[in-house]
Amino acid sequence: MSEPTPHAPQGFVVHTAPVGLADDGRDDFTVLASTVPAVVSAVFTRSRFAGPSVLLSREAAADGRARGVVVLARNANVATGAEGEAHAREVRDAVARVVGVAGDELLIASTGVIGRQYPMRGIREHLATLSWPFPEGGFGQAARAMMTTDTRPKEVRVSVGGATLVGVAKGVGMMEPDMATLLTFFATDARLDPAEQDRLFRRVMDRTFNAVSIDTDTSTSDTAALFANGLAGDVEPAEFEQALHTAALALVKDIASDGEGASKLIEVRVTGARDDAQAKRVGKTVVNSPLVKTAVHGCDPNWGRVAMAIGKCSDDTDIDQDRVTIRFGDVEVYPPRPEGGQDGSGQDEDTLLTAVAEHLGGDEVVIGIDLAIGDGAFTVYGCDLTEGYVKLNSEYTT
Amino acid sequence: MSEPTPHAPQGFVVHTAPVGLADDGRDDFTVLASTVPAVVSAVFTRSRFAGPSVLLSREAAADGRARGVVVLARNANVATGAEGEAHAREVRDAVARVVGVAGDELLIASTGVIGRQYPMRGIREHLATLSWPFPEGGFGQAARAMMTTDTRPKEVRVSVGGATLVGVAKGVGMMEPDMATLLTFFATDARLDPAEQDRLFRRVMDRTFNAVSIDTDTSTSDTAALFANGLAGDVEPAEFEQALHTAALALVKDIASDGEGASKLIEVRVTGARDDAQAKRVGKTVVNSPLVKTAVHGCDPNWGRVAMAIGKCSDDTDIDQDRVTIRFGDVEVYPPRPEGGQDGSGQDEDTLLTAVAEHLGGDEVVIGIDLAIGDGAFTVYGCDLTEGYVKLNSEYTT
Repeated sequence: MSEPTPHAPQGFVVHTAPVGLADDGRDDFTVLASTVPAVVSAVFTRSRFAGPSVLLSREAAADGRARGVVVLARNANVATGAEGEAHAREVRDAVARVVGVAGDELLIASTGVIGRQYPMRGIREHLATLSWPFPEGGFGQAARAMMTTDTRPKEVRVSVGGATLVGVAKGVGMMEPDMATLLTFFATDARLDPAEQDRLFRRVMDRTFNAVSIDTDTSTSDTAALFANGLAGDVEPAEFEQALHTAALALVKDIASDGEGASKLIEVRVTGARDDAQAKRVGKTVVNSPLVKTAVHGCDPNWGRVAMAIGKCSDDTDIDQDRVTIRFGDVEVYPPRPEGGQDGSGQDEDTLLTAVAEHLGGDEVVIGIDLAIGDGAFTVYGCDLTEGYVKLNSEYTT
Repeated sequence: MSEPTPHAPQGFVVHTAPVGLADDGRDDFTVLASTVPAVVSAVFTRSRFAGPSVLLSREAAADGRARGVVVLARNANVATGAEGEAHAREVRDAVARVVGVAGDELLIASTGVIGRQYPMRGIREHLATLSWPFPEGGFGQAARAMMTTDTRPKEVRVSVGGATLVGVAKGVGMMEPDMATLLTFFATDARLDPAEQDRLFRRVMDRTFNAVSIDTDTSTSDTAALFANGLAGDVEPAEFEQALHTAALALVKDIASDGEGASKLIEVRVTGARDDAQAKRVGKTVVNSPLVKTAVHGCDPNWGRVAMAIGKCSDDTDIDQDRVTIRFGDVEVYPPRPEGGQDGSGQDEDTLLTAVAEHLGGDEVVIGIDLAIGDGAFTVYGCDLTEGYVKLNSEYTT
């Protein structure tokens, strides 16, 4: 997404293959690994139904060191009991033996249908054929092999100092990440202080992946990790944080605009809040409102639904409807103008509605909300709600 | 809904008429009033964008006495500034003069599009023609005149001791009531101790109207009130509470099954929770999940989405996925059976899935969840998510 496209970071290899998790022959199995030791920062779903992949990965990442990740797409391996846990451990350990590291130096991630056991026969057959090292690069293949209902792979590369950062992500439904999104992995050859890396990673995730919601449903498998192997030497942490933010935001926007059935990206920018947390709460409430989402889908300049959604934050008793302003794009739509047209701005109601309709007709709709309370600000990302979302999710599985 | 249908309670009169809030000539203006003083219990939306109708009604109900309510449908009179408030007061006071009471003895409720001023010319013309008393009965007309996107009027009548209770309600979108639903009114000629009436009213509302969610969007106008004029004499409070619960639940189920675009009623019964509040939180999370709602719409026995939705209650760290059970109708679908079929019950996986599919094919889908923590229980009501919901709300207004 940046240009010219940088090379892949040094020392990372990728393997993808079809192992029969789905029956369409597409690649569904991915290993992304560093050929040398790497520092890992990772965040995971807080779901009470998190699967064994998340539990194993959380343990693996706890000491801040990991070589890479094994990803299985089209089957979440969630709610599969002790058998599912044994399968996850078996797959991870088999790959680790090939890479030549201990089992707990690899993360494992799995995404897809909940409540089904892995088809272990095909997986075992494939694992028996693996040979090390895997080819260098191939992040694009990885992004493609991770897809479930995604309509396109999501990959981004950014240069930072003498190093490179690449990120891949998947996830377009069951998407309101709570600590991370459904599978996003970053690899860099930059060298960073491990504690510093962890702090900046969490800050960036909070402002990017934790700011997106497709449908309010939080996956059981959300995993985000950054692997840094240091081969390109030191980079300035602030510069790296900016690069990571750029990369993560590009993936987030790509994900939101590819939301299941989505036709438009929605960005809700909240300012003037008591604090950032309040701004995020208000933003999420608006971007998740099905009535706001359907209005955007219908290009309907119905700002009353935005007002309604703000009003749902009923514990935020400092929100005063007489001080709030609402904008669609650059056009202020609330507070309402006095009836009958002119307000001294030379624009009458019809002119305003035309400008709003034009903004709503685009691919990216920006809703601005100022609460006029304090300095808190937060921007969240989502998409419209369409018949396509309902159709896809009424027909998907079982 | 009960049979035989009881008579209307004594001493209540109803007036309905078209005053031009919409342009299809349908009745859109209602007055429901007691001919003698009445005790009122009422709850209202907690929205930060509550309109002047809610503010005026909250004041009017504060002393526990009110004669009735004026209802305007098809225009919410919300986010309309000082002008909107003046209009609400003018309409209420004009009706009060006709009824022969002070302005603050009437509630006023308004429902429909947000952000538009009332068409006051038509309203004023109509108010000038009003004459007292209005005809007795006519609750069915009131239920019809209150409708916006409802496809049918909602009315219920129940006998209780020597008295009668009638309830009318509207509201099928922007529906996750927070303290009450978008407009429901009960009238009874029973006599109750005012404090007792208020307590039982709030208890019943909490278990009925506060337990329904169509689309997670909370209206700015939610209002529920019970008017009791005492003309039929004393009734046993426990008996009255039971009757009110029966009436309210009938309206709630009627509302949920008429949810915008809905084809099925969904009932989520949570048991074994730490307390009732946790049961309600889990139930709401499941009934509001768009992935659960679309699965029900598609008659898909995808219990994994129910597990996912329970998992979203991530602050409830006492929820243990190894102790949870999930049922569709009478069929237990989680925890999963050992792979390969037989589990000693004589039923294999296919037989189970067939039984579940049959239940999902009906008009009412019951999802049972037991958390195996404690004795808390709560049942919530909702509906499936269909292309019809998206279509309706992409095209509705402006």
